[in-house]
Amino acid sequence: MALVTTSTAKPGARSRLSPEERRAQLLQLGVRMLATRSLDELSIDVFAEEAGVSRGLLYHYFGNKQDFHEAVVRYAADDLIAQTAPPVDGDPLERLSVSVTAYLTYVENNYEGYLSLVKGAMSGNETMRAIYEEARATLTDRIFREDAQGEIVDDTPLNRLLARGWAAMCEQLVLEWMKEPGAVSRTELLSVMAVSFPALVAALD
Amino acid sequence: MALVTTSTAKPGARSRLSPEERRAQLLQLGVRMLATRSLDELSIDVFAEEAGVSRGLLYHYFGNKQDFHEAVVRYAADDLIAQTAPPVDGDPLERLSVSVTAYLTYVENNYEGYLSLVKGAMSGNETMRAIYEEARATLTDRIFREDAQGEIVDDTPLNRLLARGWAAMCEQLVLEWMKEPGAVSRTELLSVMAVSFPALVAALD
Repeated sequence: MALVTTSTAKPGARSRLSPEERRAQLLQLGVRMLATRSLDELSIDVFAEEAGVSRGLLYHYFGNKQDFHEAVVRYAADDLIAQTAPPVDGDPLERLSVSVTAYLTYVENNYEGYLSLVKGAMSGNETMRAIYEEARATLTDRIFREDAQGEIVDDTPLNRLLARGWAAMCEQLVLEWMKEPGAVSRTELLSVMAVSFPALVAALD
Repeated sequence: MALVTTSTAKPGARSRLSPEERRAQLLQLGVRMLATRSLDELSIDVFAEEAGVSRGLLYHYFGNKQDFHEAVVRYAADDLIAQTAPPVDGDPLERLSVSVTAYLTYVENNYEGYLSLVKGAMSGNETMRAIYEEARATLTDRIFREDAQGEIVDDTPLNRLLARGWAAMCEQLVLEWMKEPGAVSRTELLSVMAVSFPALVAALD
């Protein structure tokens, strides 16, 4: 992927982008800015100045600040989903491990943006909450789609519930670990996340 | 215990309560009201009318709406901690199971109040977040205090982190289950929560 990190051209630079491409480029830049600041700090003014585009262009593409924020958070969610996609082939547990490692890397590289996604879920804003819940559902339900042969777990209501609980645990583990990364090694943290889901399922059999 | 549910006297009723007792009685009533409505819906006006007290009395005790909400949420958090206290004696796993059952019962009986606590954590309000984080830290760190002999888990940074992750998982499991209680039985849910923590620790040994 690396959509978010490879493009260094400013959207204001002269180019022959289609409106869709230009819009996507602005969103990429928005997500990149969220790596180091919260959603509240990402005003249209700040964004316009850093992106080197007019406020009018932003309003043209995104309507208002609220719509712009929603578009950025949705882009971040899609980006998270894309960047944590497990490899197509290989041992199911190994694929889960790769996916979990990509998840931690994503949060490390996009901490504020990720926090915005999580906080959006709990805010009064129903759209933000829907974006978050959709993203989390995609991330966890993917386990059952990727594992259609039931190599890791059978697709049962209990295991689906367990996957949601496990995802909340991983989110909490990563957020707590980011606050104090010294106490537990990165390797240990990754091991906890990768091993815990099959262990939970096995313990309940 | 059961402070919230036993008292049926209205705070406005003639009584010889001390100011502290009267304040506590108002908070109990506030928490009880949160069982069926959100914090946002609990205005001073609504509360004063239902409690049969004057708005002036409420402002006298709590300052303003924000302070009143904080006091109610803090009271709810303390109540949650008290009601989920594990028994003093017995097998550690059995005590964990009793505590987890009390937690589910608490959420079932105080759903909106509990949601207010969880949502408060993610709101922009730092005090609400602190109340929530304090409560969750007390709930999880209790495992290590109650289990000082390490009968369930050793007290290590990794296991402390794991306990926080497990608590987030339990919260998610209960909130998801409350939305759709039919798919997984209450007994299964309780089993997941009680069994999962030792299973997680064992899987990482």
